[in-house]
Amino acid sequence: MFWIPIDRSLHLSLIRQVYEQIRMRVLRGEIQAGERLPSSRELASSLEVSRNVVIEAYEQLLAEGYIVGQQGSGTYVAEGAYLDQEQEEEFSSFFKRSHLVEEKTGEIIDFRSGIPALDMFPRKIWGQIAKEVCIEVPHAIFGYGHPEGRAELRHVLSRYLKRTRGVHCHPDQIVITSGATQALSLVAHLLLSSEDEVIIEDPITHDIQTIFSSRGSFLYPVPVDEFGMKTDLIPPDKKPGLIFVTPSHQFPLGGTLSIQRRIQLIQFARKANSYIVEDDYDSEFRYQGTPVSSLQGLDPERVIYIGTFSKILSPALRLGYLILPPSLTERCKDLKWFTDLHTPSLEQLTLARFIDEGHLERHVRKMKKQYKARRDCVKTCLKKEFADSVNVLGDSTGLHLVAEFKGVDFSEQQQMEAIQQKIKIYPVEFHAIEKGNHKNKIILGYGNLSREEIEEGIRRLKCTLT
Amino acid sequence: MFWIPIDRSLHLSLIRQVYEQIRMRVLRGEIQAGERLPSSRELASSLEVSRNVVIEAYEQLLAEGYIVGQQGSGTYVAEGAYLDQEQEEEFSSFFKRSHLVEEKTGEIIDFRSGIPALDMFPRKIWGQIAKEVCIEVPHAIFGYGHPEGRAELRHVLSRYLKRTRGVHCHPDQIVITSGATQALSLVAHLLLSSEDEVIIEDPITHDIQTIFSSRGSFLYPVPVDEFGMKTDLIPPDKKPGLIFVTPSHQFPLGGTLSIQRRIQLIQFARKANSYIVEDDYDSEFRYQGTPVSSLQGLDPERVIYIGTFSKILSPALRLGYLILPPSLTERCKDLKWFTDLHTPSLEQLTLARFIDEGHLERHVRKMKKQYKARRDCVKTCLKKEFADSVNVLGDSTGLHLVAEFKGVDFSEQQQMEAIQQKIKIYPVEFHAIEKGNHKNKIILGYGNLSREEIEEGIRRLKCTLT
Repeated sequence: MFWIPIDRSLHLSLIRQVYEQIRMRVLRGEIQAGERLPSSRELASSLEVSRNVVIEAYEQLLAEGYIVGQQGSGTYVAEGAYLDQEQEEEFSSFFKRSHLVEEKTGEIIDFRSGIPALDMFPRKIWGQIAKEVCIEVPHAIFGYGHPEGRAELRHVLSRYLKRTRGVHCHPDQIVITSGATQALSLVAHLLLSSEDEVIIEDPITHDIQTIFSSRGSFLYPVPVDEFGMKTDLIPPDKKPGLIFVTPSHQFPLGGTLSIQRRIQLIQFARKANSYIVEDDYDSEFRYQGTPVSSLQGLDPERVIYIGTFSKILSPALRLGYLILPPSLTERCKDLKWFTDLHTPSLEQLTLARFIDEGHLERHVRKMKKQYKARRDCVKTCLKKEFADSVNVLGDSTGLHLVAEFKGVDFSEQQQMEAIQQKIKIYPVEFHAIEKGNHKNKIILGYGNLSREEIEEGIRRLKCTLT
Repeated sequence: MFWIPIDRSLHLSLIRQVYEQIRMRVLRGEIQAGERLPSSRELASSLEVSRNVVIEAYEQLLAEGYIVGQQGSGTYVAEGAYLDQEQEEEFSSFFKRSHLVEEKTGEIIDFRSGIPALDMFPRKIWGQIAKEVCIEVPHAIFGYGHPEGRAELRHVLSRYLKRTRGVHCHPDQIVITSGATQALSLVAHLLLSSEDEVIIEDPITHDIQTIFSSRGSFLYPVPVDEFGMKTDLIPPDKKPGLIFVTPSHQFPLGGTLSIQRRIQLIQFARKANSYIVEDDYDSEFRYQGTPVSSLQGLDPERVIYIGTFSKILSPALRLGYLILPPSLTERCKDLKWFTDLHTPSLEQLTLARFIDEGHLERHVRKMKKQYKARRDCVKTCLKKEFADSVNVLGDSTGLHLVAEFKGVDFSEQQQMEAIQQKIKIYPVEFHAIEKGNHKNKIILGYGNLSREEIEEGIRRLKCTLT
C-alpha cells in the first residue's frame, strides 16, 4: 500500500505534505506513468487525514499535470512527468567563504574613506519620520512611481542645492537614483558607446574606472595636483564621450579645481561637444570657508551633476541623484525605468520631509564640527609620530586626507604588515591609472573613527613603517 | 562705487550673498581681470555688514581662484575667470508636460494589471517595524552593505520560499534586488551578449521585451495556450542565451505551465546548455488549490528564479530577488555592486522582520480572499453585461484576467473611446511579439479596484463596445 509520512508538527499544511510527497515520487519516477493512485477515500483513511485533504492535494496535482483522471474513474500518474536528477550538488558546501565573517572586523582600526560616523546617524528623527510617512501618505504612493522619483523630494532638493551648493536646476532636471553608483552607471549607459574615450582624473576611485571600462570605453587619464585636474594637459583635439571630474574635492588627492581650470574644462567640453560629469560626493564638509560652488552652476547645459546622501547621512540608504541638462532628462528616465523602475518611494518621502523640516542642514552642521575635530586629530597625530617625514594633502574638505611619506613604498607587503598591526590602510596607488606616481601616499579616512581610534591607529601606522 | 544688493530676508547667509554677487560679476565679465576690488573694510561699511562677512567672502573667492592678492596689498580679479554665456535657456519652459498631471486620474476607472490594493497596505505594522529597525539595529548597518543584500533577509526568505513556493535554495544563492525589473536587467547583462537569442513566451510583458532587446538580443517568440508556453514548438537546434517563462501564471494570458512542458523545457535547456529564467510575479494569489510549485525546484542548476514583493506588498518598496545557481552568484554580485552597490539596508531589515513575525503570510491570506472576491465580481459582471460573447482566460491566479470578445478588435480607436467612457483598458495585442493573434482580448487588472468600481467599469466597457 501507498504510504506517505505525515508530520503534524511541521509548518506545512497536510494538503501540502500529501501533494509534495506524491509530486516528488512522480518526478523521481518512484511511481510511474499509468500507475493507479489510491482513491481519495482509501488514502485518507490510511493516512488518518480528512478526505478533503486528499481531494485538494489531488486537484492540485491534476491542475499541474502530474496526474490524470476524474473522480470516480480512477486517478493515474500522467505521462512525461518524470525528470532524471542531473548533478545533485550539495549547495551548502559551495558557499564556504561566508560573508558574515567580513563584518567582524573587531579590533582592527579601519582607515577606509567615505564612511560617515555611523554612530551618529539621526536614528530617532529618521525612524519617526519614516513611520509618519508610511502612515500618513495618500494610498497612491504605494503604487508604481515615476522613474525620476517623487516630485516632493525633487522640489525640496532643488531648493536645498541652490542654497548650499550653487547648483542651478529645475526639479524636472533631477532624477533620484539608488546612490551615486547608480547615477554613474546610468550616465555611462547614456553617454558611452564601446570604444569611446573618457577623460578622467588620475588617480580616481577604482570602482569608477571599472564602471566606465565595463562599457567598453577607454580611459584617458589626466594627472591632478592641488588644484584638481591639470586641464592644460588635455589634448585639444580629443572628442571624449564624457569628461569625469571631482572638482570640489578630488578623490583621492583632495584638490579643489580652480576657477581658471573650470572655465578651461567647460570651454573644452563645448568645443568637443562633450558632457562633463561632476561627482560631488562630500563637499558639504568643507572646513575652510563655505562650500565651493558647483561646476554645474557655471554651465548647466554641459555639466551633469551627481550628488549623494551617503556621506552626509548614510550609505545604507542608497539615495543619490543626477542633475541633467534638459536635453538628456527624458532618455535618462527611460533608462532608469528599464533598470529598476524607480527608487523606493517611502524612503524618498522620508528624506524630503527630513530636508524640508531643516534636519539635514542641522545634521550637516553638527557633523562638520565632528569631522573637523577628527581631521585635526589625524593631522596632529601624524605630526607627532612622523614630524617632517609626512606631508598632508587634500584636507580642506570631506572625510579623508592623504598622507605622503618620505621614502616609503606602500606595497602589498606593507599593507599586510599593517593588518598585522591591526590597522587597514589604503594606498593611493590602488586608484592610480598610470601606475608608479603615488607609491608613497595613503588615504586616511577618519569619518567613522573616534579620537581614541585615530590616536591608536596612527601609533600603529608608526609601528608598521618602522 | 561697488554696489552689492544685500537682502536680509533671504535664506542665504550674508557671506554667501557677497560671495555670490562678486562671483557672478567676475564670471560674466562685469568686473574684469586685473580690476581692483574695494578693501574688506570699505566694502563692509558700504554694505553695512560686519567686516568678517566680507573677509570670509573674499577668502572663499581667493580659495576658488576668482580673485588674487593678499590682505594689505589689495585684492584683484584673477585672469581666466570669465566665461561667456552660451545659450541661456529658460529651463522652466522646457518642461511643459508636467508629470504631476498624470497622477490625477480622478474618476477614470483603470484596469491596469499588477497593482495590488493600495488602500490595504499594512501601513501601521510596516511603519512601526521600520521605526524599530531604524532605532534598534547595530551602528554598522548604516555603513555600506554587501551586493547580495542582508543575510537576515536572505535567511528568512529562503525559509519562506521553501514553505510557500517549493523553491529550494541556500540563502547564499539569493541576491536581493531593487524589484523584479532590476533582477531581469541583471540577468540580461549576466547572460546575454549582442545578437544572442532569447526564447520567450508570446505574448509577454512589453517592458520585458524591451529589457532583452536593448541588450542587442533577438526575441524568438513561442506561442502560449492555457498550459503556458507551447514547448514542442521550440526548434531543438536552438542555442538561446536564455529562455524566459512565467510558468505559474503566464503574463498576460494566465496559463499554468504543465509538468510535461516543464520537463520538456528543462531537458531542452540542459541540451542547449542554456538557463531558464522563471518570473514568478504573483503566484501567491492562487484561487484554486495551493500555489503551484516553482520550476526552479525541479532543477536549481538550470533555473534562475525571479521573485518580487510588488504584488504581495507594494511596488513602491522596490524589493525583489534573484535565486541563482551557485555557479552564477559571484558574477551577479559583482554586477549588482557596479550597478548600485546594494539595495537599501533598512528596508531589507524591515521586510525580514515583517516576514519573520508572520505578518507577510497573514497579509497574503487576507489579500487572497479580497482578490478572489474581486475576481469573482469581474467574472459575474462580464457575464451579466456580455453573456456568451465574452470568454474569460487565465483567472486561476493573480491580480488580472483576460477577457476575449467575439468580433471585437481592440484598436487604438477603441482605447480612445474607452478613455471617453472614463475607463482605461489594456489590449493583449500590445504585449504580442507576433502581431495579429490577440486583437480581441484585453487584460483586466482588478487588484486595486473596489466592487463598485468593477461593476461601474464593466458597465462602461459595455458602453464602449456597443
